[in-house]
Amino acid sequence: MQTVSTIIQTETAKRLIDTYIERFCQSRSLEAMEVGASYFQLWQSIEKLVLAGGKRLRPFMILATYQAYKPDGDLEDIIPAAAAHELIHLAMLIHDDIIDRDGVRYGVENVSGQYLKHYGQFFQDTSELSHMSLSAALLAGDVLIADAHHMLQKTNAPIEQINRAQTIFNGEIFEVVGGELLDMEMAFLPPGVVTADTIAIYKTASYSFVGPLTTGAVLAGAPEEDIATLKQLSIFLGVGYQLRDDVLGTFGDTAVTGKSTTTDIKEGKRTYLIETFERLATPDQQAEFSEIFHKANATDEQLAVAKQLLIDSGSKATVEQLIDEKRTLAIEKVNALSLPEESKQLFYALIKRCLDRES
Amino acid sequence: MQTVSTIIQTETAKRLIDTYIERFCQSRSLEAMEVGASYFQLWQSIEKLVLAGGKRLRPFMILATYQAYKPDGDLEDIIPAAAAHELIHLAMLIHDDIIDRDGVRYGVENVSGQYLKHYGQFFQDTSELSHMSLSAALLAGDVLIADAHHMLQKTNAPIEQINRAQTIFNGEIFEVVGGELLDMEMAFLPPGVVTADTIAIYKTASYSFVGPLTTGAVLAGAPEEDIATLKQLSIFLGVGYQLRDDVLGTFGDTAVTGKSTTTDIKEGKRTYLIETFERLATPDQQAEFSEIFHKANATDEQLAVAKQLLIDSGSKATVEQLIDEKRTLAIEKVNALSLPEESKQLFYALIKRCLDRES
Repeated sequence: MQTVSTIIQTETAKRLIDTYIERFCQSRSLEAMEVGASYFQLWQSIEKLVLAGGKRLRPFMILATYQAYKPDGDLEDIIPAAAAHELIHLAMLIHDDIIDRDGVRYGVENVSGQYLKHYGQFFQDTSELSHMSLSAALLAGDVLIADAHHMLQKTNAPIEQINRAQTIFNGEIFEVVGGELLDMEMAFLPPGVVTADTIAIYKTASYSFVGPLTTGAVLAGAPEEDIATLKQLSIFLGVGYQLRDDVLGTFGDTAVTGKSTTTDIKEGKRTYLIETFERLATPDQQAEFSEIFHKANATDEQLAVAKQLLIDSGSKATVEQLIDEKRTLAIEKVNALSLPEESKQLFYALIKRCLDRES
Repeated sequence: MQTVSTIIQTETAKRLIDTYIERFCQSRSLEAMEVGASYFQLWQSIEKLVLAGGKRLRPFMILATYQAYKPDGDLEDIIPAAAAHELIHLAMLIHDDIIDRDGVRYGVENVSGQYLKHYGQFFQDTSELSHMSLSAALLAGDVLIADAHHMLQKTNAPIEQINRAQTIFNGEIFEVVGGELLDMEMAFLPPGVVTADTIAIYKTASYSFVGPLTTGAVLAGAPEEDIATLKQLSIFLGVGYQLRDDVLGTFGDTAVTGKSTTTDIKEGKRTYLIETFERLATPDQQAEFSEIFHKANATDEQLAVAKQLLIDSGSKATVEQLIDEKRTLAIEKVNALSLPEESKQLFYALIKRCLDRES
């Protein structure tokens, strides 16, 4: 019978995955050198980025879920599946940064950021330079998407389980690409065409929670009912994670989160808080808010007023209540798992980590 | 014993692949609709593009090679592997068009071209509009890379053969991404850093020839020596194809090729012809040529002079001679295959088609 102590710690998972990914990047760099020095450099920029940050939460969830259902299993067998999830995450971040035209990730230059410097000497026209740097990042993401798929295939498990994990994986990618598209369009489509819930389910929950938890369970040979329950649990986790993210984005402690609490309002990001505000606020409150929302040059006083409106309208409290509901539903799902009580602690801790976090 | 008549015709291959890809796109469109109407639209734009053109040469080569080695095999079994090669080609074209900022492919609007229209109403700033359209195309290519990998997995063959086909496939993608990077950089790096040969091997030969021929052979269970020989043959085919492409790009008949014979010179594309010219031309010829090469506003008279210099220097004849050498080497490789003479006709025809084509 497994005990809590058999479940891997997040730091151990990070170490295992980092080692695997570092070796993978080094091996790819060598192969890239045969194609050309430039391609070697692209792989160096990928390695630099991936080792600069990231908590490896997705791989951790795969490894831990696997252990919960197969305490005597060998983690080495499924590290490729876990690392593949980190690799696809990396690819998506690199491409997300292209769409957002961001040059920084994990506090360091991302791929296009590194190429801005590298290509700088060849261009006088900054828009040409920017396009070429983004194009290098585009290619980096492309090869990582393919490599992630191929990496997953190296998992050591019965072929039926690997095929199923691959189908889950491909489904995650299909969904996150859709979520990314909707998220991008949300910024310019009329309000209401895309909802925060759709983005949370497809951009956040799918490949960050549903994929990892069900993959770990499938590879461990967990009972079908548990796999279905874990899928439902993951959606509550993912949506709850996003709800918490939206609250922290405006009401968090910058010293703890490291993120501005005014960017969402200034950029006019249609978060759960905003959607709820629009549903609950009085016409006067809406009119006052609309003078401040989505104004890049809003003053500190105005931003304080906007935040107060989100509180006074009941929007903040309603979103907190939604988080409470997701927590309750998620706990019910964990209770329903066929695992011994002590193994369930992993999932209770995950719920706490995602929904009650302060950063 | 197989006869030539058992080898599939290019038109039949195109029909089989088009049907499979059309059904795939329709099924993906329906699934995308569940995510959101915008995602459905992305898949519609993918379907529109892929059915607008393309000769399906890569799938044809897989199907035909498979039949050459397994005349009693069922083509249905390997259509997923063949279609996967078309899908990755499509993804690469879509992303290549992003890098080149091209809005047209197969004579119709490509994905970003379609989105320029679709998003037009939401933007006044054309550079914003362009960025968002390219971003939609970026996401289209991303999901296709993942789907291509997953499609290949649906091949009906022994698992060892599928795994090997997947490794070949992933290797192709790794190489074509490297080739694409080098090709992009070739436009602004100092001459000589990247050679036309490197581009031909990694951007053209790898996923357009080596991948298809070896995949067909592996899935048919061809002898190892033949697989190795086919790999060498494919490199001659791919490089020969590119050499012919470069000659046609300057000396082709526009009425037949449908392509301008001055674009390469005006854009300063460093083709085999140019590299050879630089090696063979006298200092006077080089000086005269450099006044015209890579000048977007070169006159018709100047362009005629440049072409004549490529002839007078011996560059054109030398490249033609290189093609002859590749043809001889390729034929030797076909002769060495363990196939009956009549099955080899397929490969002789392929050599002719790639190296002696006029369009």
